[in-house]
Amino acid sequence: MAKRQMSLGVFMMGSGHHIAAWRHPNTPQNGYENIDFYKELAKIAERGKLDMLFISDALSLTEKSHPSEMVRFEPLTLISALSAVTEKIGLVATVSTTYNEPFNVARKFASIDHVSKGRAGWNIVTSYYENDAYNFSKSSHPEHDERYAIAEEFVEVVKKLWNSWEDDALIRDKEAGVYFQKDKLHTANHIGKYFQVKGPLNASRPIQGHPVLIQAGSSPRGKRFAAKTAEVIFTAQQTLEEAQAFYRDIKETAKRLGRNPDHIKILPGVSPIVGRTEEEARAKYEELQNLIPEDIGLAFLSDYLGGLDLSHYDLDRELPDEIPATNGNQSRRQLIIDLARREKLTIRQLYKKVAGARGHRLIFGSPEQIADQLQEWFNQEAADGFNLLIPYYPTLFEEFIDQVIPVLQQRGLFRKEYEGNHLRDHLGLPRPEFVPQSLVSQ
Amino acid sequence: MAKRQMSLGVFMMGSGHHIAAWRHPNTPQNGYENIDFYKELAKIAERGKLDMLFISDALSLTEKSHPSEMVRFEPLTLISALSAVTEKIGLVATVSTTYNEPFNVARKFASIDHVSKGRAGWNIVTSYYENDAYNFSKSSHPEHDERYAIAEEFVEVVKKLWNSWEDDALIRDKEAGVYFQKDKLHTANHIGKYFQVKGPLNASRPIQGHPVLIQAGSSPRGKRFAAKTAEVIFTAQQTLEEAQAFYRDIKETAKRLGRNPDHIKILPGVSPIVGRTEEEARAKYEELQNLIPEDIGLAFLSDYLGGLDLSHYDLDRELPDEIPATNGNQSRRQLIIDLARREKLTIRQLYKKVAGARGHRLIFGSPEQIADQLQEWFNQEAADGFNLLIPYYPTLFEEFIDQVIPVLQQRGLFRKEYEGNHLRDHLGLPRPEFVPQSLVSQ
Repeated sequence: MAKRQMSLGVFMMGSGHHIAAWRHPNTPQNGYENIDFYKELAKIAERGKLDMLFISDALSLTEKSHPSEMVRFEPLTLISALSAVTEKIGLVATVSTTYNEPFNVARKFASIDHVSKGRAGWNIVTSYYENDAYNFSKSSHPEHDERYAIAEEFVEVVKKLWNSWEDDALIRDKEAGVYFQKDKLHTANHIGKYFQVKGPLNASRPIQGHPVLIQAGSSPRGKRFAAKTAEVIFTAQQTLEEAQAFYRDIKETAKRLGRNPDHIKILPGVSPIVGRTEEEARAKYEELQNLIPEDIGLAFLSDYLGGLDLSHYDLDRELPDEIPATNGNQSRRQLIIDLARREKLTIRQLYKKVAGARGHRLIFGSPEQIADQLQEWFNQEAADGFNLLIPYYPTLFEEFIDQVIPVLQQRGLFRKEYEGNHLRDHLGLPRPEFVPQSLVSQ
Repeated sequence: MAKRQMSLGVFMMGSGHHIAAWRHPNTPQNGYENIDFYKELAKIAERGKLDMLFISDALSLTEKSHPSEMVRFEPLTLISALSAVTEKIGLVATVSTTYNEPFNVARKFASIDHVSKGRAGWNIVTSYYENDAYNFSKSSHPEHDERYAIAEEFVEVVKKLWNSWEDDALIRDKEAGVYFQKDKLHTANHIGKYFQVKGPLNASRPIQGHPVLIQAGSSPRGKRFAAKTAEVIFTAQQTLEEAQAFYRDIKETAKRLGRNPDHIKILPGVSPIVGRTEEEARAKYEELQNLIPEDIGLAFLSDYLGGLDLSHYDLDRELPDEIPATNGNQSRRQLIIDLARREKLTIRQLYKKVAGARGHRLIFGSPEQIADQLQEWFNQEAADGFNLLIPYYPTLFEEFIDQVIPVLQQRGLFRKEYEGNHLRDHLGLPRPEFVPQSLVSQ
């Protein structure tokens, strides 16, 4: 049997994931809204045989948002354009279940799966910015657990709609004048708490059965949703032990829910910085950290702490023991608080660390050292692969692709060529069986 | 001054506009859901220097829908992919104001305008199928005039959002660490009857200021909306006199509303069928008409009559004088009834005629004869150009592009090369000025 292979995705984000990325001399200043640059990055990712590129999203901005959130492309528009300049790599777009309609989302992902010939993935988010509500004629954002309840029903409706047409329903027999078989067209007839959707969907069954479902919840409610629904999980652990605990928890929960744990790929985020030596890699990162302005770093930390007001704290002391409650993303807030406590960081150190890596794990070193660190997590049941968060594009990304990927390939941990044409093939995920709904014809 | 130029768009629709198009030997059987075929058609359209290609939409289907409505690509996904394989041609997507959120729509069109480098257009529709409501957790479809009231407010919100960032707001000064100028970021703060949207939009101002706004209303309410809002109007007149009356009405209404009538381009739909002679062209069409099955033609006519139940009528007689009211598209219904009365058609003749041309004008002949008929309407204030409804792709389209376009070019009626890079340039429309909203910074 073939050796277990790593799954690698890249969080593709214009100038880069680091808050000061756009200021780096190697990146175009308008990288977050530069389609030619995105096309170039997509081709680099495909040159590295990555499983997928992933586009994040947000539905509002403030004056203090990360530059990537000020102006950006809508993710589905972007991956559709990228589908035309790539051949094999998976294309994952983030879409919120809180501010969209299931029918529209089912359609768009069915379309992009057809347009890309089986390469689409949906990163399911529930949106965590309070401000998002005000852009959608809502006076408040649903609270955390209700957002997940909405998301569960939303995904249920979308899956029903993807099962409107059986795989062989559209026979298109020119001679007989029969476009489709009536007994293979189904209707969702969904009547739920949040949604009432009749169907059928006006798109044939996606090439992959379903586009790949991806999730990143790490709160207890988010993890339960992910274990039930997700085929890929993005996560943000900092240490091997935390990552192993998360990995075990998800796989066991999935097993209890009757799922095959091998059909959930857990990909912690990691920011790899490659140098000839570890020192050279760290120096590259320091150069970037020095480009963060204080006010922006602080605003960023406040957001990552779920909207906590930091203006009354002494920046050169640690966070106090008691921290007021907020309505933002709770699981991420807890990860940041845990990090601060563990490393005994002052608020100033914390904002630099967080604004830099944005809560994800940084690794430094030569190509072999980077590969070692990835391999350790992969071999010790902490990860099925990784989601790469590149601090600035394109040079840090090209160094990873051209120097680290070959090491992983030599070690037999990563493919040398794509073996299939669909995102599911790259990830080793099965194609979902058709699940019959009510027939349209009585 | 340069001679007035025709604007030409093409209603790009997979296998073709004709209900039996998919059965024609020259077209791929899966043309409505075949991305490679769409890419090929887009390149043919660009070879002909057309102003734009246009993708229609619908949000539900029945067992009796036109084959193009059974399974189809979501229009924005499609034009985004087509933007990557074309350079100059405008890309127009249909999006409903009844089943979307203004923030999402403003974003998507801003994104596609950036991704396509200034080639986006929005065909604004209010959706007319009753069934659409049931796919969006609604128990009924808003009635006709209310849909237009919603649409007007929707477009107002979208325009405000497109004016979130002044054109030079994003300075991205790497040295100074200043990403944008705070006094050039505006917020919509829209509080209306149907929508409350705060903004700002997380996309910089579209390259064209606004993507081009397109409309096709022909009811009195629809025409008022179009005269107020649209920069291009798709219409469906059958005779020179009707077209002239519509043209005059729109241009005069626009003038009364303070608009420059030259900034509204009126493009009647036309299906050109080219042959070496008119007889040869008519024979090509008859071949296609003979592929329409009766049950499908009849279902189609019922839909075009606003959902009228035809099962109690004698198909070999004309429509009765009194026809029951329906809740579907009223303006199209009236156009069809007028056609039937004028030409004294039986229901059977009417369904063949309507299912074939779908209510639009057919013209037949040699390349010169086709050009004559277009020129007549263009010169006699019935049209500023045309929206081409190609019965089946690709051959009827290639014949138009390669045989009729050169005649129009020789006559000085149509460009030989694109002169600008944006859809607005092709259409001769001005770029809208920035309209300041409230500042985000106080």
